[in-house]
Amino acid sequence: MAEDPAPARGRKRSEQTRLAILAAAYELTLEVGFAGVTVEGVAKRAGAGKQTVYRWWATKADVLLEALALKADLTVSTADQGSFEAEVDAFLRDSAALLAVPGVVPVLRSLMAEAQRDTDFRHRFQDGFLTRRRAAFETVVARAAARGDKPVHLTAALAADLVFGLIWYRVLATERLLGEDDITAVRRLLSEQPGEE
Amino acid sequence: MAEDPAPARGRKRSEQTRLAILAAAYELTLEVGFAGVTVEGVAKRAGAGKQTVYRWWATKADVLLEALALKADLTVSTADQGSFEAEVDAFLRDSAALLAVPGVVPVLRSLMAEAQRDTDFRHRFQDGFLTRRRAAFETVVARAAARGDKPVHLTAALAADLVFGLIWYRVLATERLLGEDDITAVRRLLSEQPGEE
Repeated sequence: MAEDPAPARGRKRSEQTRLAILAAAYELTLEVGFAGVTVEGVAKRAGAGKQTVYRWWATKADVLLEALALKADLTVSTADQGSFEAEVDAFLRDSAALLAVPGVVPVLRSLMAEAQRDTDFRHRFQDGFLTRRRAAFETVVARAAARGDKPVHLTAALAADLVFGLIWYRVLATERLLGEDDITAVRRLLSEQPGEE
Repeated sequence: MAEDPAPARGRKRSEQTRLAILAAAYELTLEVGFAGVTVEGVAKRAGAGKQTVYRWWATKADVLLEALALKADLTVSTADQGSFEAEVDAFLRDSAALLAVPGVVPVLRSLMAEAQRDTDFRHRFQDGFLTRRRAAFETVVARAAARGDKPVHLTAALAADLVFGLIWYRVLATERLLGEDDITAVRRLLSEQPGEE
């Protein structure tokens, strides 16, 4: 995204406008659904001009992508909890909490559907959201490897595929979100060392 | 779908027409992409009338749903291999082979995207494809439970969520399909009994 060359006060105002646009896009989608959202409508609700939105984002989906990425960064903790099992548990709990926020599931579904239709958006969604979420979880796996409680056969990439695969499959396919039983079972499955063979 | 009331020869002809329509829809999607496919184009290519297609399917997506469900049933084995680990391995290998068939990944992506936009199709996709694929894998888990080599903490539902979650996440999000290393790691992860704690 373009750097804002304005002085300090201008940068602050510009940042407030950015946040107002992200909030407006999210609220509008919650009210009228992704198909009903327009960049014009988002700009109007944020009290900004259409060109201001296009200055920072290519499409309405890109605005929502950034709104969701920020929500996820703020909601899902990757803090050191002393053990891989505790951190997988916290990551899954926070992810379940994020999915329970009104509007998050429909927005995720709209963005993943959009990524299947629009190849350019697909790459921006991968870079700006999917890879960013993977990186968050992979810090948890890397810490476990350093600490020595990561199961030997589990690579960071496969662990991330299984965790995000489960979350996305639930969101897109089954409409069942993560419950207490799921969190416990996945936490145990990913963190337990296999028995002797 | 409507029962065909015609006598034996009529039923045979009608079944040939159904298969021709399924093949035509699949080939056409491979050539022009989901967005470019029309029921009219499918009918024309199959040498059938548009009304014949609509007699059996509500939309072009429903034709592709059935074509994919048949391909999956024919490609992915759930035969008894003597152990849960061997059967998970076979299921993943066959699934990887299915995903390697030209056109399968783009069609799966189009159908999942369509399911996010059209709620009615979403339910038909769940019933006619997603639940049907889960049921296939769940027979493998049920056999393991009867045989006694299913890991204690692993429910059939969670095992299916993890396997199909991984497959769908790869198809929709990362564009990396299942490789030898993935199959080995998932087979071990799902089939190994946890060590003593």
